[in-house]
Amino acid sequence: MIQKLISNIKKTQAPVVVGLDPMLGYIPEQVKKKAFDAFGETLEGAAQAVWQFNKEIIDHTWDLIPAVKPQIAMYEQFGVEGVKVFQKTVDYCRQKGLVVIGDVKRGDIGSTSAAYAAGHLGKVQVGSRIYSAFDEDFATVNPYLGSDGIKPFLDVCREEKKGIFILVKTSNPSSGEFQDRIADGRPLYELVGEQVRRWGEECMGETYSYVGAVVGATYPEQGKILRRIMPKTYILVPGYGAQGGKGADLVHFFNEDGLGAIVNSSRGIIAAYRQEQYAKFGPEHFGEASRAAAEDMIRDIRQALENR
Amino acid sequence: MIQKLISNIKKTQAPVVVGLDPMLGYIPEQVKKKAFDAFGETLEGAAQAVWQFNKEIIDHTWDLIPAVKPQIAMYEQFGVEGVKVFQKTVDYCRQKGLVVIGDVKRGDIGSTSAAYAAGHLGKVQVGSRIYSAFDEDFATVNPYLGSDGIKPFLDVCREEKKGIFILVKTSNPSSGEFQDRIADGRPLYELVGEQVRRWGEECMGETYSYVGAVVGATYPEQGKILRRIMPKTYILVPGYGAQGGKGADLVHFFNEDGLGAIVNSSRGIIAAYRQEQYAKFGPEHFGEASRAAAEDMIRDIRQALENR
Repeated sequence: MIQKLISNIKKTQAPVVVGLDPMLGYIPEQVKKKAFDAFGETLEGAAQAVWQFNKEIIDHTWDLIPAVKPQIAMYEQFGVEGVKVFQKTVDYCRQKGLVVIGDVKRGDIGSTSAAYAAGHLGKVQVGSRIYSAFDEDFATVNPYLGSDGIKPFLDVCREEKKGIFILVKTSNPSSGEFQDRIADGRPLYELVGEQVRRWGEECMGETYSYVGAVVGATYPEQGKILRRIMPKTYILVPGYGAQGGKGADLVHFFNEDGLGAIVNSSRGIIAAYRQEQYAKFGPEHFGEASRAAAEDMIRDIRQALENR
Repeated sequence: MIQKLISNIKKTQAPVVVGLDPMLGYIPEQVKKKAFDAFGETLEGAAQAVWQFNKEIIDHTWDLIPAVKPQIAMYEQFGVEGVKVFQKTVDYCRQKGLVVIGDVKRGDIGSTSAAYAAGHLGKVQVGSRIYSAFDEDFATVNPYLGSDGIKPFLDVCREEKKGIFILVKTSNPSSGEFQDRIADGRPLYELVGEQVRRWGEECMGETYSYVGAVVGATYPEQGKILRRIMPKTYILVPGYGAQGGKGADLVHFFNEDGLGAIVNSSRGIIAAYRQEQYAKFGPEHFGEASRAAAEDMIRDIRQALENR
């Protein structure tokens, strides 16, 4: 799947991913009204509003971008109905040829991590039959439990040609609380980065590993160091736009080949119509506002890469 | 909810929790056959087998125990159908008066953690209405992202009188890979433990905090130290039984008041009928085997606490 991701990035010339993290507050009133009229002000109604919102954004951006990253928390908050729409969103994006990165941040031990890996990336056996459940292309994974938690994902990645992005240095202000602790003379995130490189060596694609890393756009200096520590690791970079990262800050996340990183923007694209810059589209044309925001982001990153 | 947990523990005189982590391989053939006959060898059929299995175990153990801990990975592997049965299991256990600890190991940043907290412990607003989605009593949470990831859970805990258990030192063999790294002269798990104590001070019940910790039974020495670092923190102790922990190893996880810890067993109880010791019940009476195993576990821990 790392091959498909790279091929999609080359095709679109856009190392970006749109984060499908729909909060109800982002969804225009007319979309909510239609969903609530049909399903009531219920969890099902909320989920339906999310689905219509996602579909409109995907329909307006899919040809520009290589990948999407639905954040499962935003679906789980609506319970089973939300999870159904997560599934529907994954399926729809894959049909459109997009690579789907399930931002699920799972991680547990042994057979439990194996169950997460099977459910999100792999297959389960039921009697004599085999099924894929959520069937994302990539999943994000939390490394706090160590190799026992990661290895079951590696097994599934090898078998299914899927991938993972392991949290190394997250984009949030307090990410340093534990991740920056100095152990053996080096911050923990570097030790995690080294381990990601080693895990990745067990799952190599042609030039990059199936095992990627998450490093926040908000920490460009750390990104530079981690780029060197993990040369064959694709870096998923959240924190662009709304969280403060800019294209020029991001060049060091990329390798000399112009590959090796993919930059996520969620709010900045899916709720673009609420920003002054794209207000002219109005809430009724929120999909077009998202397209314009995606085009601007792609341009910003392309220019930064050309000027480095 | 920490008050209800303590009250349930006092009532049952059993500081134990049954882990509802149903793998299809644990489920007796007759249960699977019935489910597959009705729903086919499908994800729905698998989920139905899980539900019937859970119900039988709950019906045979609920009066002995204060709490259950469904492991959501085992449900997510069957996709939406599995998640439905997770919900059904949570609801059924709460109706029986059991405290439900959702072993979901979630953790993200800001609004994303807030969505997890809302979905698993709190409420979501849909238009003019308010809903609870999964509505567990406690959830397990991963601390790797720091305070930004934890604070939204604390807000919900205070509002809803719910609780969390934060991963501090997990029970698996490789938990030391990052958790034991020495930072500022002390292992990372101690630093996380200190932070858990501080977070917990913001959410105090009468004698214990709403904010608990996960510390594996397989690390009794570390448990002893963490008990001292976090005196008002309830410790959820996985790893009893199948993972190797014994009652006598666990006494130091408890405070002098006989409270402060709750010991989980999953496989050892739910798949008891497959152990030599309980084979006499046979697969057709697997619920009774689980009851016998729960009684033995309770006795083992009570004796260890009396003899300390």
